[in-house]
Amino acid sequence: MLAEIITIGDEILIGQIVDTNSAWMAAELNNIGVRIKQISSVSDDKKHILTALAEASKRADIILITGGLGPTKDDITKKTIAEYFGVGMVESKEALDNVIQIFSRYNRPMLDVNRLQAQIPANCEVILNKNGTAPGMWFNEKGKIYVSMPGVPHEMMYMMEDAVIPKLKSTFTLPVIIHKTILTVGEGESFLAERIADIEDSLPPFIKLAYLPKLGSVRLRLSGYGEDEAIVKAGINEFAAKIVERVKNVVAAEEDIPIEKAILNYMEQKGLTLSVAESCTGGYISHLITQHAGSSKVFFGGAVSYSYELKEHILGVKSQTLEKFGAVSEETANEMVTGALKNFKSDFALAVTGIAGPDGGTPDKPVGTVWIAVASANKTVVKKLTFGNKRKQNIERSAISALNMLNTLLRESEKLQ
Amino acid sequence: MLAEIITIGDEILIGQIVDTNSAWMAAELNNIGVRIKQISSVSDDKKHILTALAEASKRADIILITGGLGPTKDDITKKTIAEYFGVGMVESKEALDNVIQIFSRYNRPMLDVNRLQAQIPANCEVILNKNGTAPGMWFNEKGKIYVSMPGVPHEMMYMMEDAVIPKLKSTFTLPVIIHKTILTVGEGESFLAERIADIEDSLPPFIKLAYLPKLGSVRLRLSGYGEDEAIVKAGINEFAAKIVERVKNVVAAEEDIPIEKAILNYMEQKGLTLSVAESCTGGYISHLITQHAGSSKVFFGGAVSYSYELKEHILGVKSQTLEKFGAVSEETANEMVTGALKNFKSDFALAVTGIAGPDGGTPDKPVGTVWIAVASANKTVVKKLTFGNKRKQNIERSAISALNMLNTLLRESEKLQ
Repeated sequence: MLAEIITIGDEILIGQIVDTNSAWMAAELNNIGVRIKQISSVSDDKKHILTALAEASKRADIILITGGLGPTKDDITKKTIAEYFGVGMVESKEALDNVIQIFSRYNRPMLDVNRLQAQIPANCEVILNKNGTAPGMWFNEKGKIYVSMPGVPHEMMYMMEDAVIPKLKSTFTLPVIIHKTILTVGEGESFLAERIADIEDSLPPFIKLAYLPKLGSVRLRLSGYGEDEAIVKAGINEFAAKIVERVKNVVAAEEDIPIEKAILNYMEQKGLTLSVAESCTGGYISHLITQHAGSSKVFFGGAVSYSYELKEHILGVKSQTLEKFGAVSEETANEMVTGALKNFKSDFALAVTGIAGPDGGTPDKPVGTVWIAVASANKTVVKKLTFGNKRKQNIERSAISALNMLNTLLRESEKLQ
Repeated sequence: MLAEIITIGDEILIGQIVDTNSAWMAAELNNIGVRIKQISSVSDDKKHILTALAEASKRADIILITGGLGPTKDDITKKTIAEYFGVGMVESKEALDNVIQIFSRYNRPMLDVNRLQAQIPANCEVILNKNGTAPGMWFNEKGKIYVSMPGVPHEMMYMMEDAVIPKLKSTFTLPVIIHKTILTVGEGESFLAERIADIEDSLPPFIKLAYLPKLGSVRLRLSGYGEDEAIVKAGINEFAAKIVERVKNVVAAEEDIPIEKAILNYMEQKGLTLSVAESCTGGYISHLITQHAGSSKVFFGGAVSYSYELKEHILGVKSQTLEKFGAVSEETANEMVTGALKNFKSDFALAVTGIAGPDGGTPDKPVGTVWIAVASANKTVVKKLTFGNKRKQNIERSAISALNMLNTLLRESEKLQ
């Protein structure tokens, strides 16, 4: 079963927002065995939307549309879809009740434009929007399903989970798609490929292997397609096991999770705890960790020590160390990680201090200079890394490098026991 | 001048990664007066790529392609483009030298697959990749420009900035596109629209207004199109000024920046400093702030206090308060913000404590319960908010709400002076 996603809105095409909806929707659809053929972002322009709908309907059985359903004048999706199907607009009692209820809940007067939100194409079935005034719309025309949803992520997500996914499952008999991902750290894409070349060559036609490189890691993704779930699953598991066996020295997880989640899972299982001391990463490592449910079982928290003051008073970095070697130095990184271990009372800690840029560099410490320390009660590892001059990249790379170093220290500590 | 972006890779279509490249590229192209007609994500499938190229070339003058240039077998972009143009492959000395240089820099042996990266379609001009082994490729065929770049964001970004943007500027005479964005907080989309309806109705045909709602804020974007930069700019400025004058009570910034950047700019200008105490937001607010260059002038840092231990020892929250009222309470939020002000010695502070979920809720404190406090030496405001049960959303909404509260306190403090 094939689907296409069409996102409507100039804000994506001028780069003002990143389209995060499509990836989320694609993952949800893949879970129920629907493959995405194409994702297209088009402008708030009638002709362009009509063309996109026509093109998508030639390639796919399910067309999911997001965006352009707001109450304001630049939003034209609803009328354009009505024109596409050659139907008029009607007022939906269900959608109107929802709008009225939302306004009364927030105790605000309802405007004329809000009432217009209950106008829908005559051939559609309303999908209730519990989180907003724009109704979702489900169309079943000539054996194809079209669904139009708001572009506001949480409104779209609730609709997908509550209504669209269950309705798709009951409308179609869906094939099986199974993905399995292996997270590796510390080895380049081409070296991995060389090491598993013979396994890759022996893959049956219903299994595909993809390499997904990302800062500091490469994910290997096996995808199996078929009708018999047991056969597809057995094939995927067989080849995943072969690959893991071959490259196990660089495998951080056997599922599609990021490195910090692999660390959290490992530490939780071993009953270990973690704290952090972040300077140039500015809370990004803490954020990566705490976005995961259950992280509080492992993660105590930490300090975002941008100022000297915080480095000294929370982490106990000596003022002489800061004066003599500077905030970005091996000595400071060392004292930061030791301070975190001691003051926050965790089993492991990591510390990062560096010059994220774009300003603040000096000849001997250029922008992109970063010191990372990871430590347990028994061992401390400190490393200097040199990145470029792009701030966001330096923050991301520092964070991933620190997590990779922590992962290595954790696995080494296990071997020593 | 119209462009299209085609991103190639199954990882986007199965939702494994979010396509952040397209938004970045779109913003860069808009800056030089190139409008994006469509963004399409297609699979690593020859026929599908050929169709996408043909469709895009019918609509646009510039076609930018990213992804599918890795050394591994699932990457087929290069060969497919050669087939599209009906040319063979040749080895590029320039690209080969680059590959050799990169491997010698990292002191790693070069594999056969790496040498293959220097193979390029015979009709292309190489764009040097300083950050990786896959060359960029520039094609000028039948009056249209095609550019193929790697999907790895930092490789693509360097190529765009260093080569593609300058080459496009020298190849085409580009029209003028000017965007101006006004950031508003605390008023819904339809209420804003009602307040400025007459201004919107009086817009000249070359200016478009769009409403971009996002958690807690609505951005109003004016876009002007034309040939005479002075005329377009004057029109945009005139109508932007009218809108700002009308809704100034909710305007947080008159440029396209997020709320935390508006706060940083305001505080830097006033010589004010900030620290934070984050529990359920887990470092996300610190990360939002520190991703901006120059944030260290305003931001001292703070604590990510996930454990009771850290709340007590770094922030000075009393253990009796935690025992009697719990970590998620008005009293704890109050002591956290007071502790941050005192211990981190900043002029303003904010504190967030809540139950991000999906677990950890109780009947009287369900998942999504969040207490936020913002404070200066003169005034503390504490507020309870109730969100849903989705962890990431709760983190984001808590962060944005805290920043909006801080923004309000800052503006109020100014009036009192």
